[in-house]
Amino acid sequence: MRLGKVIGTVTATVKDPQIAAKPLLVVDVITAAGKVSEPSVVAVDTVGAGVGDRVIITQGSAARIPQGTATSPIDATIIAVVDTVQTAKT
Amino acid sequence: MRLGKVIGTVTATVKDPQIAAKPLLVVDVITAAGKVSEPSVVAVDTVGAGVGDRVIITQGSAARIPQGTATSPIDATIIAVVDTVQTAKT
Amino acid sequence: MRLGKVIGTVTATVKDPQIAAKPLLVVDVITAAGKVSEPSVVAVDTVGAGVGDRVIITQGSAARIPQGTATSPIDATIIAVVDTVQTAKT
Amino acid sequence: MRLGKVIGTVTATVKDPQIAAKPLLVVDVITAAGKVSEPSVVAVDTVGAGVGDRVIITQGSAARIPQGTATSPIDATIIAVVDTVQTAKT
Amino acid sequence: MRLGKVIGTVTATVKDPQIAAKPLLVVDVITAAGKVSEPSVVAVDTVGAGVGDRVIITQGSAARIPQGTATSPIDATIIAVVDTVQTAKT
Repeated sequence: MRLGKVIGTVTATVKDPQIAAKPLLVVDVITAAGKVSEPSVVAVDTVGAGVGDRVIITQGSAARIPQGTATSPIDATIIAVVDTVQTAKT
Repeated sequence: MRLGKVIGTVTATVKDPQIAAKPLLVVDVITAAGKVSEPSVVAVDTVGAGVGDRVIITQGSAARIPQGTATSPIDATIIAVVDTVQTAKT
Repeated sequence: MRLGKVIGTVTATVKDPQIAAKPLLVVDVITAAGKVSEPSVVAVDTVGAGVGDRVIITQGSAARIPQGTATSPIDATIIAVVDTVQTAKT
Repeated sequence: MRLGKVIGTVTATVKDPQIAAKPLLVVDVITAAGKVSEPSVVAVDTVGAGVGDRVIITQGSAARIPQGTATSPIDATIIAVVDTVQTAKT
Repeated sequence: MRLGKVIGTVTATVKDPQIAAKPLLVVDVITAAGKVSEPSVVAVDTVGAGVGDRVIITQGSAARIPQGTATSPIDATIIAVVDTVQTAKT
């Protein structure tokens, strides 16, 4: 999984019916120190995350394991809102 | 998923029969700010996207979930045409 | 999928029996403009591609969908020989 | 798989129920020489690793093969604590 | 697949039982010209490769297709020892 920061939302009228009811958030993948390592992943939110939240995203087939996602054509899902990241080197 | 910009089309006479009837588009993966982060992904279009459109692509096994793609040897599919990307930092 | 340029061939006497009869080509992943973005992917050829051809490769589990590949331990397959790539920005 | 160094822990109150009981560690992917090649992967620990340990992580669907992980939406798991890495070029 | 060069071995006492009997090698991913493009992948050896050998590795779910690997939590496997790589541009 990856740490991420939710930076925005995406809207789309023309889309696959299997993502029609899913909130799509734009997430910058970040390091434990907060540096962006991979910008602008589009992830489905399954835990009620909002813009500004630090989150955990899962990618690949794992993205379709949370409840309600099994038949959606998605490859990235937010599975947690982070409280704290504690590192030995920070 | 990723944001992308459709920049062109690919034609191929010699190809796997399972992609014969699929429109193949060339998509630059972009950030929310519009910067190209990964050039020239070839994606199957399932939503009627055209050159110049900003889209969402899904990759890996997720690419074979949209209707009509299950038996095709494809790893990237356009699943939405983006209306707006709203970010807190733009 | 990715655009690629076939740059060579690989031979191996000691190998998994499930790839024994498969032609293994070395493919540079390229952009629509022809720039190498990822060098030296080893891909199984299923369409009769040759050195110098511009091709489309598919990666991951998609690589085992073309006929005759289902039980091979492969993660990259050539699924088309490109005729033309037309881009709005070239 | 990848060599990694455990650098910290993540806590999250709001999360997918299928990761509720799993220890989530922050792992820097490293080379055999100890250089960080990919920072801050979040991995589930299945072998009792701790901060400071050098480990092996597996990614993708492989992450859900260790006992107790099959139904969790995870894409990275620690599967070993490294004793030694012996290289010809070190 | 990728070309690789075996540069070393990894030992681990504490590990997932499903990798207990598997030789774990450290492989640098290389280009056809021999340049390291991705250092220190840890791969299971299924063909008797040794340090110094040039090999082909397969990654992702393909890594669990060779005989004896199906239930192991592995994402990279050596499937061939390379005899020759012939390229038009070398």
